[in-house]
Amino acid sequence: MPSYKAPVRDTEFILNEVIKIADYSALPGFTEATPDLVSAILSEGARFVEEVTQPLNQSGDESGCIRNDDGSVTTPQGFKAAYDQLVGAGWGGLAADPEYGGQGLPHIISSAFEEYMISANMAFTMYIGLTQGAIAAITAVGSAEQKQTYLPKMVEGSWSGTMNLTEPHCGTDLGLLRTRAVPQGDGTYKITGTKIFISSGEHDLTENIIHLVLAKMPDSPDSIRGISLFIVPKVLVNEDGTLGERNAVSCGSLEEKMGIHGNSTCVMNYDDATGYLIGEQDKGMRAMFIMMNAARLAVGMQGLSQSEIAYQNAAAYAQDRLQGRSLTGAKNKDAPADPIIVHPDVRRMLLNIKAFNEGARGLMLWAALLVDLASKAETEEQRQQSDDIVGLLTPVIKAYFTDKGYENATTAQQCLGGHGYVREWGMEQFVRDARIAMIYEGTNGVQALDLVGRKLARHGGRALRSYMALLRSCIAEYTTTPEMTEFVTPFEHAVDDLQGATSWLMKNALTNADNAGAASVPYLYIMSLVSLGYMWVRIANAALLALGNGAEDVDFYTNKLQTARYFFSHVSPETKIHLVRVEAGSANLMVLDASAF
Amino acid sequence: MPSYKAPVRDTEFILNEVIKIADYSALPGFTEATPDLVSAILSEGARFVEEVTQPLNQSGDESGCIRNDDGSVTTPQGFKAAYDQLVGAGWGGLAADPEYGGQGLPHIISSAFEEYMISANMAFTMYIGLTQGAIAAITAVGSAEQKQTYLPKMVEGSWSGTMNLTEPHCGTDLGLLRTRAVPQGDGTYKITGTKIFISSGEHDLTENIIHLVLAKMPDSPDSIRGISLFIVPKVLVNEDGTLGERNAVSCGSLEEKMGIHGNSTCVMNYDDATGYLIGEQDKGMRAMFIMMNAARLAVGMQGLSQSEIAYQNAAAYAQDRLQGRSLTGAKNKDAPADPIIVHPDVRRMLLNIKAFNEGARGLMLWAALLVDLASKAETEEQRQQSDDIVGLLTPVIKAYFTDKGYENATTAQQCLGGHGYVREWGMEQFVRDARIAMIYEGTNGVQALDLVGRKLARHGGRALRSYMALLRSCIAEYTTTPEMTEFVTPFEHAVDDLQGATSWLMKNALTNADNAGAASVPYLYIMSLVSLGYMWVRIANAALLALGNGAEDVDFYTNKLQTARYFFSHVSPETKIHLVRVEAGSANLMVLDASAF
Repeated sequence: MPSYKAPVRDTEFILNEVIKIADYSALPGFTEATPDLVSAILSEGARFVEEVTQPLNQSGDESGCIRNDDGSVTTPQGFKAAYDQLVGAGWGGLAADPEYGGQGLPHIISSAFEEYMISANMAFTMYIGLTQGAIAAITAVGSAEQKQTYLPKMVEGSWSGTMNLTEPHCGTDLGLLRTRAVPQGDGTYKITGTKIFISSGEHDLTENIIHLVLAKMPDSPDSIRGISLFIVPKVLVNEDGTLGERNAVSCGSLEEKMGIHGNSTCVMNYDDATGYLIGEQDKGMRAMFIMMNAARLAVGMQGLSQSEIAYQNAAAYAQDRLQGRSLTGAKNKDAPADPIIVHPDVRRMLLNIKAFNEGARGLMLWAALLVDLASKAETEEQRQQSDDIVGLLTPVIKAYFTDKGYENATTAQQCLGGHGYVREWGMEQFVRDARIAMIYEGTNGVQALDLVGRKLARHGGRALRSYMALLRSCIAEYTTTPEMTEFVTPFEHAVDDLQGATSWLMKNALTNADNAGAASVPYLYIMSLVSLGYMWVRIANAALLALGNGAEDVDFYTNKLQTARYFFSHVSPETKIHLVRVEAGSANLMVLDASAF
Repeated sequence: MPSYKAPVRDTEFILNEVIKIADYSALPGFTEATPDLVSAILSEGARFVEEVTQPLNQSGDESGCIRNDDGSVTTPQGFKAAYDQLVGAGWGGLAADPEYGGQGLPHIISSAFEEYMISANMAFTMYIGLTQGAIAAITAVGSAEQKQTYLPKMVEGSWSGTMNLTEPHCGTDLGLLRTRAVPQGDGTYKITGTKIFISSGEHDLTENIIHLVLAKMPDSPDSIRGISLFIVPKVLVNEDGTLGERNAVSCGSLEEKMGIHGNSTCVMNYDDATGYLIGEQDKGMRAMFIMMNAARLAVGMQGLSQSEIAYQNAAAYAQDRLQGRSLTGAKNKDAPADPIIVHPDVRRMLLNIKAFNEGARGLMLWAALLVDLASKAETEEQRQQSDDIVGLLTPVIKAYFTDKGYENATTAQQCLGGHGYVREWGMEQFVRDARIAMIYEGTNGVQALDLVGRKLARHGGRALRSYMALLRSCIAEYTTTPEMTEFVTPFEHAVDDLQGATSWLMKNALTNADNAGAASVPYLYIMSLVSLGYMWVRIANAALLALGNGAEDVDFYTNKLQTARYFFSHVSPETKIHLVRVEAGSANLMVLDASAF
């Protein structure tokens, strides 16, 4: 039976010593987020997930969700009680607008808790996670009345939300979608169509489910420019806010999936269901991207979170499992064998995960801070810069974190040998659950195209210029500190590779867009390694400062420096092979006839 | 529903034009393996797996095996009938000794068919696959009477075999095993203990199951030097060869696994079961390694085979799925969208798999040829050289092929987006099935230690010297052919990296064994990439020769050259990052206290 302990100490280190949230205490929401409050939230949040939701993770995977004959869906045993506790304690609304009942805390704080939630039980957390995307969309484009009708209940958690995009023949290319919205002349629409892969589409956790549905109106262009967004509540809401009639939307079946069995992934049938336009006609893609961007960071977090819980269980196993002897002579002479953690290759596997987890936690929380600063920073320049950089980091975090989340869960599983392959130890569930994150909210290949095709080019390359300036100034800041040289030097090599890859793209992608497509994933990997390197430089600096200031917890900070060294000796140099692939261009990919595959 | 077409044309290309088995036609077994016979075997074998076993792959995964209350195990519906057809057609004994009813064909031929079998249905093939290892062990160390008693039935397939090594507390470190064998004074032993993870341990496909069981005798050392091997038949065999009493061995439970659900993975309980010593007392590890080496190559084949079937289904999907438009303008103007094969990144994913599959098929069949030559080559020097090189290649094929098999199945799954994550399309099964191959028969980390710690050092490094000479002579052979330069030049860089990594090991591993452990996996990866590169050079040369000779199938050979180019531009340069990791040494791995993980 796997276990989990939320890494509160590490989160606090990132928040207080690396990112230093106290520096932002003048900003709205941050004022309230005093160190004591944050500490209380993290430790209470840790207790909640460790005691309430994590114990349901394995059983939820085994039993899965059940669709009953009447189309209702029963979630795994214990999920409803846990959900009620979650809502009762107000965990759903940490960062939500106080106007609608939220606590108004910074995103960076709710993100810290979100990691724990997903580590403990990814399938469970998706019920409340999708709601956050729907809240973001309604907040951004909903009318005052729509906000008042839906947001308080959704923030509270007594209603949940979904995103309805995909159809059987249409995933990435939403221009192909066929769901229709016919205006009824009274401001409402009749929605008809079939949506697939709808996470949390139907379940028994909330009184109502607010579906956000992309559809086309009869007089709109039959393309991506003719898509509108609709609110389609499972149960219609009366004018006084009470629940009225059941709407004509139902779960046709549950998808049989590789993992996240505790979450109901539904085929949703809309059969002249009543819907309400949200935002402008034909501007549905804009609202959809608001949901998507929030969701993409959350999916990136799923990568980190599965990597973290898988790591914890693999490290514990490696410390316990007695098998064979150290290559340099028995270390555990009184026992029949040494623990397998004595083996360099077991450490290599664990350090690959650890170096990712700790750097990625920093990067994730920094990105969450940038989300806060994009709306709350004091100057327009700061807001714009934050928004620009989080725009670059969103595909990086979504794609790289989820690729690594799966790879790391697989590596952690490997540390257990045959015991990793059987259900009992729980490791194979982390792998199966982590796998989906590379696919949904835009496959990782689509993320790389978003980075190279859209984010780099936007505003004449402003975002990348801004990010490169930040990275170069980080190098300049530490390059004169002798203790930092061992970290900054390899970091600079990685930044140079990013520069090299960018130059290659500028020379070769404009004349041939296939060169951009061919370079997209390796380019994203270079930027990911650079971004993690940036965090590791900041982490190493914070650790050196703490040690220099006589911190008590010497082991903690020393461990950070040791892990930073591993990152820069073993992981960061990967930029080189990705640069080779960027510079190889698209010719060897495109020359094959389609039939040659 | 996934489909499969055995790559007969590609197998024939490797056998006839790359490896040129006709060159060996004077050797025993090869004489009979005329091109016509081989062609008939491959096409009949293809038909068999496509029509009989592949259609049972998905249903077998879904239903799994059932352990009945009496301890018997029922395999998935259709498995028994398919097994009977397999045995009836003599597919089990292709390469087995004619003295015991086999067809005496070369290993290289049975390996070619084995790939198809495993692609079509990995879980099913394991029932007959494990039998091959048991046959190899009985052939090598059994007495004449034991051979006569067991081999004919096992070759025929009416009895199957298992390998019983692992116990709950003991996997890699067999010295810890607790199963006891007490001599009864009549030449038999009473075997008592519990074995876990026993593939095909109990099932309804054969009349009898011959368990090969490692156990310790009371007067033997309680260590790896005190292990003996025993034959423990499920049903005792009377002197006249008929079946007698049921032996005291039973399946206690079935493991609940991530995949290979169609195979029964058993906890086996031995309760004073009657066993027969095979080979010498305390020399069980030697016999075990005979089984293991055969099994390790077969497990490597599982990596290739899952990569191949996953590739076929991903390529078909990419050619069919209409979604979005080419980056360089619509290619399919009359349709609502282009097939996703127009995208460079989709091609990158597919080419990564294709470049592996076609090179790996060559390497696998060449290794099988070396197994043949190790016993059948005309001179002692040739036999020794073949044995030496196959010794190096065994851990390479087991570890690299299975890492790539899983990675490639995952990549193929990715090509289907959300459809890859649901059961219907079958892709997620390939991933779950492929996963085990990285673990069993020695984890891939253990393979790397076998390569670096044992195979390199044996006989003063004779095997590696021999292999390097072969690689260098390949470079010398083609370096003056202008059309080969584009392949040989990057190949030479990879060989140089192998040389560099070897030199580093020689300087640093003797003084500190942890340096060998830390370098083991990256070193294995370099040797794997070099070995695949060696095959791609030979494939490219064969393709150029065929085109130069006016071959009709121009597309086939051109495609080989295009794929070779992709291999050398995108895959082979990975040796560089692995060399960086070899040369990074073990310090950054070993400095952390065990509690720091």
